[in-house]
Amino acid sequence: MTTLEDLLCPRSIAIVGASDDPTRIGGRPLSHMINQRFDGAVYPVNPKRETVQGLPAYPTLAEVPGEVDFVLVAVPAAGVAEVVRQAAEKHARTVLIFSSGFAEMGGDGIAMQAELSRLARETGVRVIGPNCLGAFNSATRFYPTFTSTIDRATPVPGGISIASQSGAYGSHIYMVSHLRGLGIRYWLTTGNEADLHIAECIRLLAENDDVHTIMAYAESVKDGPMLSEALETARAARKPVIFMKVGRSAVGAAAASSHTASLAGEDAIYDAVLRSHGAWRARSTEEMLDIAYACRPRIYPAGRRLGLVTISGGAGVLMADAAEDAGLDVAPMPADAQAEIKQVVPFASALNPVDVTAQFFNDLSLVPRFTKAMLERGGYDGLIGFWTSVAGSPVLATPLLKSLTQAMKGREDQIFLQSVVAPDEIRKAYEDAGFPCFEDPTRAVNAMAALMAFGIAFEKGRADMPEAPALPPLPDGPMGEREAKRLLAEAGLPVVEDRLVRSAEEAAEAAREFGRSAFKIASPDILHKTEAGGVRLGVTADDAAAAFERIMASARAHDSKARLDGVLVSPMIEGGVEMILGARIDPVFGPVVMAGLGGVFTEIFRDVSFRRAPVSADTAMEMLDELKGSALLKGARGQPAADARSLAQALSQLSIFAAAHANTLESVEMNPVRALPDGAVALDALIVTRKDRAS
Amino acid sequence: MTTLEDLLCPRSIAIVGASDDPTRIGGRPLSHMINQRFDGAVYPVNPKRETVQGLPAYPTLAEVPGEVDFVLVAVPAAGVAEVVRQAAEKHARTVLIFSSGFAEMGGDGIAMQAELSRLARETGVRVIGPNCLGAFNSATRFYPTFTSTIDRATPVPGGISIASQSGAYGSHIYMVSHLRGLGIRYWLTTGNEADLHIAECIRLLAENDDVHTIMAYAESVKDGPMLSEALETARAARKPVIFMKVGRSAVGAAAASSHTASLAGEDAIYDAVLRSHGAWRARSTEEMLDIAYACRPRIYPAGRRLGLVTISGGAGVLMADAAEDAGLDVAPMPADAQAEIKQVVPFASALNPVDVTAQFFNDLSLVPRFTKAMLERGGYDGLIGFWTSVAGSPVLATPLLKSLTQAMKGREDQIFLQSVVAPDEIRKAYEDAGFPCFEDPTRAVNAMAALMAFGIAFEKGRADMPEAPALPPLPDGPMGEREAKRLLAEAGLPVVEDRLVRSAEEAAEAAREFGRSAFKIASPDILHKTEAGGVRLGVTADDAAAAFERIMASARAHDSKARLDGVLVSPMIEGGVEMILGARIDPVFGPVVMAGLGGVFTEIFRDVSFRRAPVSADTAMEMLDELKGSALLKGARGQPAADARSLAQALSQLSIFAAAHANTLESVEMNPVRALPDGAVALDALIVTRKDRAS
Repeated sequence: MTTLEDLLCPRSIAIVGASDDPTRIGGRPLSHMINQRFDGAVYPVNPKRETVQGLPAYPTLAEVPGEVDFVLVAVPAAGVAEVVRQAAEKHARTVLIFSSGFAEMGGDGIAMQAELSRLARETGVRVIGPNCLGAFNSATRFYPTFTSTIDRATPVPGGISIASQSGAYGSHIYMVSHLRGLGIRYWLTTGNEADLHIAECIRLLAENDDVHTIMAYAESVKDGPMLSEALETARAARKPVIFMKVGRSAVGAAAASSHTASLAGEDAIYDAVLRSHGAWRARSTEEMLDIAYACRPRIYPAGRRLGLVTISGGAGVLMADAAEDAGLDVAPMPADAQAEIKQVVPFASALNPVDVTAQFFNDLSLVPRFTKAMLERGGYDGLIGFWTSVAGSPVLATPLLKSLTQAMKGREDQIFLQSVVAPDEIRKAYEDAGFPCFEDPTRAVNAMAALMAFGIAFEKGRADMPEAPALPPLPDGPMGEREAKRLLAEAGLPVVEDRLVRSAEEAAEAAREFGRSAFKIASPDILHKTEAGGVRLGVTADDAAAAFERIMASARAHDSKARLDGVLVSPMIEGGVEMILGARIDPVFGPVVMAGLGGVFTEIFRDVSFRRAPVSADTAMEMLDELKGSALLKGARGQPAADARSLAQALSQLSIFAAAHANTLESVEMNPVRALPDGAVALDALIVTRKDRAS
Repeated sequence: MTTLEDLLCPRSIAIVGASDDPTRIGGRPLSHMINQRFDGAVYPVNPKRETVQGLPAYPTLAEVPGEVDFVLVAVPAAGVAEVVRQAAEKHARTVLIFSSGFAEMGGDGIAMQAELSRLARETGVRVIGPNCLGAFNSATRFYPTFTSTIDRATPVPGGISIASQSGAYGSHIYMVSHLRGLGIRYWLTTGNEADLHIAECIRLLAENDDVHTIMAYAESVKDGPMLSEALETARAARKPVIFMKVGRSAVGAAAASSHTASLAGEDAIYDAVLRSHGAWRARSTEEMLDIAYACRPRIYPAGRRLGLVTISGGAGVLMADAAEDAGLDVAPMPADAQAEIKQVVPFASALNPVDVTAQFFNDLSLVPRFTKAMLERGGYDGLIGFWTSVAGSPVLATPLLKSLTQAMKGREDQIFLQSVVAPDEIRKAYEDAGFPCFEDPTRAVNAMAALMAFGIAFEKGRADMPEAPALPPLPDGPMGEREAKRLLAEAGLPVVEDRLVRSAEEAAEAAREFGRSAFKIASPDILHKTEAGGVRLGVTADDAAAAFERIMASARAHDSKARLDGVLVSPMIEGGVEMILGARIDPVFGPVVMAGLGGVFTEIFRDVSFRRAPVSADTAMEMLDELKGSALLKGARGQPAADARSLAQALSQLSIFAAAHANTLESVEMNPVRALPDGAVALDALIVTRKDRAS
């Protein structure tokens, strides 16, 4: 398997299409590597020149005398495939292609890119790009990139790495990271992803010992299951992945698909997949960088209890608000610790937020005393201090830092973020002492929320994923409700009992047996049964014969050509909480499973929860808990609690069913499912196979 | 009426408790005014010294020789009231009190503060504080504050002003504003608000010609109606108010007896009030400052169409996502304008976001051409450009700025925010050319959303507020459903017809007349009718007698002492959309009105909309549109659309009812209200009066 060393630690590089002009695309990487003193051999390839930027040039890649590990390509699209072939002959491991004019242009470009993919597969040479801005390894000063940011922002050492589909945006992330003082080790842009794609980049970074934090940007992901694996590799290595997936909005998605010409995949599923593997989905670049910065001490608390200590009561309230928004627990201090603080400053707020008050100006020792009380007695998983420009004051900066350091003595494994307004050199002193600093207190809270989410995910580890047995293919063609329910029942799912009746007499008999019943037309040709007059609820044995005749007549009137198998009779099941459970095959992630509250909640409030399938019953319980309306299952509004465990069990079974039929299934939905106080049961089901869809 | 000049433009100041030590609370303001050269007379008052910080000192305020406009008090709490009395005798206009030990300490402090309030009221002297950090007027270099930030950050001229309840947080806001290069004209902290409070500050700032943008911070507001007036004054003057109201997470503590009250939470009302008057509620300091900064050109577009032009397709997608989150419309370019762009760069995205692509590096004229096409043809209300560090490049910064300026020639009334990563001097050049700059593109989008919200609110102006007639007081004591419905019907509200029946015969007769009927126990002592077995739905004439007897028996069994008036019979009204309409008297804002979807939507999803009452039917329509579930009223899921106009009319009537009864009402709720395709009707109602509550 490829490693990051294979890709970005070469001993030699050939630049095909090298330019003597250091401002041109083919000239910049050469200029970077000369200026930065790349730790290896550099061979410009240019048939028109003897030397390029002072180095001897070679007319073709084949004529380069030594071994070539890495080939950079900056020639027009038409000539690229030939360079890849030559690179393979030269036993290069990697070819990075700047050239555009491939899939992003449509037409012939698509075929030309497919040829690059094929060459990568067949020769084993790894291809980065085409249409990418390059990559770098700052440790070996290896800069195969034409971004100009390198000239203005020479990378500094550090364990953060960046993978980005977008070159220009990848440069932006790099530049802003640099300005924040973040050391970037590896930087990769993947462009059109003929071979190397973003999910694999994350795996490579997760496997590399020099990388401790991963930032990623993507508009789409080619291989959802590989993304899952990559995120699990990072989680196992306790490496935070901060992932920005754009194209959430309708306009954004349209812009992304025109930009990269790739299949989008549903955004809510990305959301669920990232979260379920412990990655943090960043909504803005600033958020991404804030979190990467807060990761520098590499302390990830495995809990959400947040202690706040502040010099401003107002800032305390503000941070408490932000903490609640972020799902953190601003738990109160134990009573004895509160009493201790009150003894020192009677009018201090000691509950949490703990307010050192203006008394602080008279007695700086309050800071270590108060924070010690919080750390020792509060049992907080993390602390944030708000000191505003007091921390930047020429008089107070040093004593404050000293007292904070003193408070943390022996607690170096705990995280204490600071909100300070201070000149760079003072801020740096705080950072060097292990305190990440944020000017804005809300941003400090949000960064803490991410650290805690990482810590909890690292602790929790990988979710159980049950085995999906190989099952025989699903039957072809449209499938009626009865058939769908039968298949699901066979797979162990709780579906309501039914009987197909073909006469008024049979109908009456069934209703006698079931009690109050639901009557529904059974026809493979009628999908919208209610519209066809094909549904009657609460039918009693007395009404049954008439109900049968009316349903058959209505259905006939609705569609004279429809095949009518008869009427499906089921016992009426009422009460409980109406749910929808479903699964489908996502183009990016494969089988995914979904749970939602019924009807309006799913359609209008979009209160649904997703996971990659299959899921265990425990994971299914988590999915139910994630619903905004989960309170309903717990028995809100005077109703009894629903049997969530049975519902979760059904969801797990459904996910296994979907995964087992991934090759022939398009989607399956049990709607409604009634979550009763004792058990859960599906009243209707729909299975769509791929052949149905194609037809 | 007081003006800001009265408060913060004095010709003279006396500092009672002035200290010779410039680091002490009583010494700092004097030191500030000496260092900054305050444009007026300064009289230190200190009985123990001949001079204070080099100025002649006076033993008492009375002994100060000249006129004193402004008195600053830094003596212990016990002596403060006497100073206020002396200040009144001296015909001072304003007393600003640093001293703590008042209401914030509880106990005697509360009475001492009440005395200050009384003195202010009776003498006409305006009191700022107590327990406040002070204020400033940077134009006259008047610094009656002990914040130390002034030493490190001398205010620069500008039209932004700050009002904050919190002193420490007010200092933080000032400091961060200063670091952003924002000129702050007036800065006020109100502390305990014995007299001057935050709402009045906003009014004073709104009325002052030197102020163009207002930032405010509050934990609570003393006078909700005055806040409304202040915000309307600002709106009429086209001055943005950026308001940070903290304490969101403490909501729900003030739960009241009625249903609406318990889920309202005061915070949701602040939210609604701020929005309805065109103020922007900031969630973080950074957001507040971003918006104040973006207000500098004072251009507020009255629409939400956003044009995006970018050098990175990825950033375009990201900004489109952020725009959708912010409710902006990233509308596509007209086809002809797209064609024009495609002619120049065939592979450019021309839809919006418009991507200038790397082609930009070869031809900078693309920028004015593309942006001109967007401005002239796109009809956008505002534009954002993303240029990242290209805008900071030594080579490209100047030509890019030139081309942006050229594109805006003749369009100086349009707003064009820039996302750039550039050194301070380059950023300043952009700002001087009229382009506010943001490093982070998401923050640029959010700032634009605020500018557009201001523009729309300025254009729209004040909402009609109908007259609330004076009505006779509500009856005392607990009120049954029937009485509540009768009162509401008299006020013109649509409530379902009902009849009180006292025997099985009367019940049968009513059911014969109404058709299928709803039976409910009528008792002033039974609030939870369903629990008491007191409700039967869908009763026919045949079942009526039995239903009557069963309800009466169940109610008797439930509470043998309850007064049973009989059974209330109404025609069954089914279908439509179930809503809750309510109103209550909020302690801060007075009468407020509320609309929500029924049951679960209101209780669990908290999908409710508020306004100060009374509201016009038009405003009521806006309230319905604000509901997340408003799609249900428009006929989602194959249902007919509800008669939203009738519903809005009812909501308006209910708000007038509440406002008219503001003196005796606690809360009123119509729940459920069925919004039918034709009309709306309340099926139940509850009125709680203040006397009910007290009992």
